[in-house]
Amino acid sequence: MELGDSGLTLAVNAVMSAAGFLVCFNIIPKFKDMFIKANLFGIDMSKRSKEKVPESMGVICGAVFLIIMFLFIPVPFYKHLAENQTGKFPHHEYIEYLAALLSICCMIFLGFADDVLNLKWRHKLLLPTMASLPLLTVYFVNFNSTTIIVPKPFRILLGYDVDLGVLYYVYMGMLAVFCTNAINILSGVNGLEVGQSWIICVSVLIHNFVELTGDQHQAHVFSIYFLMPFLGVCSALLYYNWYPSQVFVGDTFCYFAGMTFAVVAILAHFSKTMMLFFIPQVFNFVYSIPQLFRFVPCPRHRLPRYNPETDKVGMSYSKFKTDDLKPLGKLCLFVFRLFRLVDVKESTGEDGNYTEVNNFTLNNFLLKLFGPLHERTLVIIILSIQTVCSILAFIIRYHIARLFYH
Amino acid sequence: MELGDSGLTLAVNAVMSAAGFLVCFNIIPKFKDMFIKANLFGIDMSKRSKEKVPESMGVICGAVFLIIMFLFIPVPFYKHLAENQTGKFPHHEYIEYLAALLSICCMIFLGFADDVLNLKWRHKLLLPTMASLPLLTVYFVNFNSTTIIVPKPFRILLGYDVDLGVLYYVYMGMLAVFCTNAINILSGVNGLEVGQSWIICVSVLIHNFVELTGDQHQAHVFSIYFLMPFLGVCSALLYYNWYPSQVFVGDTFCYFAGMTFAVVAILAHFSKTMMLFFIPQVFNFVYSIPQLFRFVPCPRHRLPRYNPETDKVGMSYSKFKTDDLKPLGKLCLFVFRLFRLVDVKESTGEDGNYTEVNNFTLNNFLLKLFGPLHERTLVIIILSIQTVCSILAFIIRYHIARLFYH
Repeated sequence: MELGDSGLTLAVNAVMSAAGFLVCFNIIPKFKDMFIKANLFGIDMSKRSKEKVPESMGVICGAVFLIIMFLFIPVPFYKHLAENQTGKFPHHEYIEYLAALLSICCMIFLGFADDVLNLKWRHKLLLPTMASLPLLTVYFVNFNSTTIIVPKPFRILLGYDVDLGVLYYVYMGMLAVFCTNAINILSGVNGLEVGQSWIICVSVLIHNFVELTGDQHQAHVFSIYFLMPFLGVCSALLYYNWYPSQVFVGDTFCYFAGMTFAVVAILAHFSKTMMLFFIPQVFNFVYSIPQLFRFVPCPRHRLPRYNPETDKVGMSYSKFKTDDLKPLGKLCLFVFRLFRLVDVKESTGEDGNYTEVNNFTLNNFLLKLFGPLHERTLVIIILSIQTVCSILAFIIRYHIARLFYH
Repeated sequence: MELGDSGLTLAVNAVMSAAGFLVCFNIIPKFKDMFIKANLFGIDMSKRSKEKVPESMGVICGAVFLIIMFLFIPVPFYKHLAENQTGKFPHHEYIEYLAALLSICCMIFLGFADDVLNLKWRHKLLLPTMASLPLLTVYFVNFNSTTIIVPKPFRILLGYDVDLGVLYYVYMGMLAVFCTNAINILSGVNGLEVGQSWIICVSVLIHNFVELTGDQHQAHVFSIYFLMPFLGVCSALLYYNWYPSQVFVGDTFCYFAGMTFAVVAILAHFSKTMMLFFIPQVFNFVYSIPQLFRFVPCPRHRLPRYNPETDKVGMSYSKFKTDDLKPLGKLCLFVFRLFRLVDVKESTGEDGNYTEVNNFTLNNFLLKLFGPLHERTLVIIILSIQTVCSILAFIIRYHIARLFYH
């Protein structure tokens, strides 16, 4: 396929993405009551008002996204469909679209089921792994390139390249699970889930457009086909989810966004670059490990604590008996304190000593640095960090990587 | 692919289907509380007890079915995957599996969204149509045979065959919408939705196994790959949904079952035979038309009316002012009365004449014929009719059709 061809289909894709934005922008408010009636609502814990805010509205974006993609995918194959010569159709390309949509559709379904049913952690890990299987099979039959180029400093040890074999598939499967959950755990502030996804999406799109003239042209066109419609529906949702949120996005949106990123990263072969755009999520994940793996007690909600008097949010804490902490928890706490990454308070109650430590999230870490902030200020700071990290990612990808690989 | 090859993969499929049955059989009871907590429950209107029965449990079967299929689909391609010669992989076959699963996954998602949100009719018609698009594209590129053989009596008029062209795609799209909704509207009695799907599934499987030795071998193997796992999860659900129901199946199950049938009928080219197995559903649909299209007033629930004193169910009625009935409704009522298909009662109230007519469902029609019945007796009668219709379908397919086509 030549650049001229994909120019036209990209234009069609852009128009359909704009239509997706308009549709979501129009219908999201109309669905509010239906969601509240269906018991899908939350009370915003960081507001004075206690009114019901519809939850899981990401499912509308997901459905609109799927419809756009179903209508769009024949477009890039228009010439082949018009000619309709048996045996000439590029099944190997078309199959990538279907596998990608199957994985995304599964995750929207899973996310919505999670919002409605509050699934357990084992389901949240098992089902995305399963949902990425069709994708991995397609990767296997279409590319099966599991060889990675070794960075210069390690070439003496490992040689120029290493074939990771099956490990590469494990890595890609984990990528899908990581992306879906990483966005989900960097949350709890109005507009944060959609905001970060929006910035990641724009960053990846810039990367794709820059690479359009390169030799991986086709792969980046593929990525754009998915990300522009995603950006469209995501923008409409951001409008309604921005502080003060009229709607919440739910796990549905986080899973939908995460899987979309994982899918394009895998099938368009830029998973390392994608990870660079996930720096804040990786930091938040690593920082969260002590609580995620229950070394340190983890409350159900870790969002910052709202102070109605000042209308600001501050750190939220996890409180537990000091003696209940297991050795691994003590070690974590010691290391994190050493590097001043957490705020710890100790107190003595009637039945022994208590420890309070701020919940291990990026949000709380920033509130530790800056002190209590207005919720909107906090989300703007985090999204600014996300943007700075994207710029950093471009510098690493286009300048520093050269030193290690060329 | 030779028969020996598919023999082995069919055995693997059978084992995985049995595993699917066992998994569903084990986990359905465990999920009951989670569904009730999530507000997904109903009160059985045909029981004395008013306890909460978990609703939409079909979603568990759907999820297990998807997982089985994700794990299974590499199996038929085992040889190609093991050889892994680029360019040799049968993408055109693999793509059918992905398109089929994408459509099914979309419908499970839509069904679940419908159960949770109570979607409107326009969504229920729009979304299945969209969900069948990838399927139709794959049909277009892989087969695009839109020519039908004309039955003998019409050949003088139309010739030996007719190319329906785009109409054939409209027909297939409508098939998907019909199958999903036809099962959904033949319901309202414990065990009916799953029971009818179970009988249709077994009938189609018999047809597939009979045809295994024919020249459409590969198409029928494809159908079996989907229907055996479906039968597995469906059997477990039937066990819990049978009178007295411990769980309800929800729209999720009806959409899931309908789309699975539509998918195999389309991709394995036996949509006419499939329709023969849907005779009771077609009757119920045609009989329902006056209410579905609102010629005659249609209450929200049309299920038979329970009499707690006798523990039997009888006809349920729709009551309305005689003068409110539009001309088309009057015509329907006149015709249906003429053929004694409905029971009509007339009465005079303070403000005019009232008409009561039994709701236009197969259930009510049978109750008109037999009088009030125990709920279990009614479901056994309907399922017996479904079985007799299947036998009739086989006679038509294998004997009468020969007269018209050979």
